[in-house]
Amino acid sequence: MADDAAARLQSLLDAMPPVAALGVRVARCDAERVVLEAPLARNVNDKACAFGGSLASLLTLAAWGALESALHARGVKAEVYVADSTLKYHSPLYADLVAVADVPDAASLDALLAKLAQRGRGGIVLEASVRDAAGQAVTTLSARYAAVAAH
Amino acid sequence: MADDAAARLQSLLDAMPPVAALGVRVARCDAERVVLEAPLARNVNDKACAFGGSLASLLTLAAWGALESALHARGVKAEVYVADSTLKYHSPLYADLVAVADVPDAASLDALLAKLAQRGRGGIVLEASVRDAAGQAVTTLSARYAAVAAH
Repeated sequence: MADDAAARLQSLLDAMPPVAALGVRVARCDAERVVLEAPLARNVNDKACAFGGSLASLLTLAAWGALESALHARGVKAEVYVADSTLKYHSPLYADLVAVADVPDAASLDALLAKLAQRGRGGIVLEASVRDAAGQAVTTLSARYAAVAAH
Repeated sequence: MADDAAARLQSLLDAMPPVAALGVRVARCDAERVVLEAPLARNVNDKACAFGGSLASLLTLAAWGALESALHARGVKAEVYVADSTLKYHSPLYADLVAVADVPDAASLDALLAKLAQRGRGGIVLEASVRDAAGQAVTTLSARYAAVAAH
């Protein structure tokens, strides 16, 4: 189940040229969280650390993947879009990028499903983070996503 | 002068693998603004419109380039980092990406230079936008950048 979900998310990501270019790999995709990895070599800036745009992309995708996969696991057909986001770059990262996003809790997901059923769309706020080897948050994202029912 | 500045910014961007992968071209870089372009084909998502991470990257780079180039034009040696950013995705974009960032005005730049001279670092808030062919903002960025004196 989790392996299937990871393979499905990987194929969704690989189908997007700018995501494939970053070398994104789905390390985990299950009922609890999504973990995406990308090598520093393909995501490095002029200062030999991780490019801010790559961190933004990986974080935006991790939270998107957590919601998209959770809806798919519940059999809900919906398109998920990022609506707005706030990124905080706490410190430079000189290692491979690993972004973690928790799957929304059951109550939040139920509220979103109710909105989708009633109005055909709904919004939810999700968080994601990239941490260094010591577990310190390097970059964090808080973003609002819109889910729109697909028929 | 503007041509030199554009060529210099282009070479800075081309040296970053994740930026080169997006096909970013410097369309304008002068005392007023920076305009960066990227083809939709290399920045498309699973819904045939511009990938949010590519929009975030291009906007972050446009504002970064506007500040970096303005400091260079004044002969200031400093490294410019993005510290935090807020992105708003107003509507999908089904065309090539064009991000515009105004160069900070003279008063803001003077204030930043004073901080750099006094403390070796300073912060400044910059805006950038991607607009559609009708001039409507598709995605906007407001971001705080840190400049750190380089010796």
